[in-house]
Amino acid sequence: MNHPRRASLLTRAMLTEGARQGITSLDGLIAHGRGEAFDYLLGEKTHDFAARAIEAAAALFLVARRPVISVNGNAAALVSRELAALSKVLGSPLEVNLFHASREREDRIRDHLLSHGAAQVLLSQREFVLPYLESNRRFVNGQGIYLADVVFVPLEDGDRCEALIRSGRKVVTIDLNPLSRTARKASITIVDNIIRAAPLLVDRVTALASEPRSTLERLVENYDNGLALREAEAALRSGADFSPPGSWAD
Amino acid sequence: MNHPRRASLLTRAMLTEGARQGITSLDGLIAHGRGEAFDYLLGEKTHDFAARAIEAAAALFLVARRPVISVNGNAAALVSRELAALSKVLGSPLEVNLFHASREREDRIRDHLLSHGAAQVLLSQREFVLPYLESNRRFVNGQGIYLADVVFVPLEDGDRCEALIRSGRKVVTIDLNPLSRTARKASITIVDNIIRAAPLLVDRVTALASEPRSTLERLVENYDNGLALREAEAALRSGADFSPPGSWAD
Repeated sequence: MNHPRRASLLTRAMLTEGARQGITSLDGLIAHGRGEAFDYLLGEKTHDFAARAIEAAAALFLVARRPVISVNGNAAALVSRELAALSKVLGSPLEVNLFHASREREDRIRDHLLSHGAAQVLLSQREFVLPYLESNRRFVNGQGIYLADVVFVPLEDGDRCEALIRSGRKVVTIDLNPLSRTARKASITIVDNIIRAAPLLVDRVTALASEPRSTLERLVENYDNGLALREAEAALRSGADFSPPGSWAD
Repeated sequence: MNHPRRASLLTRAMLTEGARQGITSLDGLIAHGRGEAFDYLLGEKTHDFAARAIEAAAALFLVARRPVISVNGNAAALVSRELAALSKVLGSPLEVNLFHASREREDRIRDHLLSHGAAQVLLSQREFVLPYLESNRRFVNGQGIYLADVVFVPLEDGDRCEALIRSGRKVVTIDLNPLSRTARKASITIVDNIIRAAPLLVDRVTALASEPRSTLERLVENYDNGLALREAEAALRSGADFSPPGSWAD
């Protein structure tokens, strides 16, 4: 394939294949389209504000008492291998948490993660409920998000992000729309394409793992999420990056 | 449902239902998501540049020798009733034309249009080929697009729009991304949500139908698509409309 928008088309194909396999929801496909448009407007590159957020997120994961990685249908279809690697480096469980939940889809996503190198995948349990939330996503795992102090929720919905914050947890998200509720509520918002950001995050966690705790804490403290969001919004508005390779269409 | 983003959620539901019924493709869902993001950035309203494009499009349809309305899976899921009404007012056929083609999906879309008031729905024929095009969309109907001088192709892909133009036809499109190839190649580009634009287009065609031909021709001649696209791009970049009702997320 020699199309100017090859990377974008391949990512789309991963998601439509995910939907055919019962991993990604139909609404997840629409959500991906929104992300594509924002990525296009941002020039389809990892900006400095995203790189800083990734660095701070890596440090936060390393100083966390009990970080947990929440996985939905889109994240599983796109970056299962990277999430499995992150889980191993951090010694943190992966937990499947879905908006459009069904035990069948949860099982499929767990199996998909396990086949991409995951050691441990938790599913939701009816006995453990996250407060401040009405959707299916309130059910969490008693050994996972229920006990977590830091939750990584790439491609998250706003209600859930807010509930996690209100329940006293810190939240790291990946969201291409710097104006979304998720982006605005999260402790650390990585405004970048998950396809680019996830491997960078694994790299940074691996690189920072040997740093002293004081260095990591300083990285977290010095990070300014509001500034990163303002820079992302400015990049979106500026149009300086309105010409990614190839014409955007179809 | 009392969600601040109710209209957007209802539109999404029409498309996911369309996908379940085999009318909308999985890639069509992703494409809709892209449109959602652009609509959000444009403030989710019909701007003046779109209203002018709708007026010119209505006039062009009325002066055309043989206008044809091309329908894909997203347009069918969202505005079948309006496209059927447009077909009746103009006396123009609807023609199903799909990128991800299958006779089964074509039949489903035809049936869907017929059940929403369409009188005549044409399907593609292997004997009639649009030049300059490699995809499945090159096959057209011998009584439809093959003979058309003006083609209405809402939610179009860039290659096909370009092929229609190169083969000497005029093209009217609806596309929320003013930077897409389709938007830039079309004769008249309505940068608006099809949910809002389609009923307005039916209204304007109905209202202008009794005008003399000279008036209609003047409306077409005086319309400047390049100016409309520049205004749309400026609206997208300006951020003046960055706060639609309700927070945008999920």
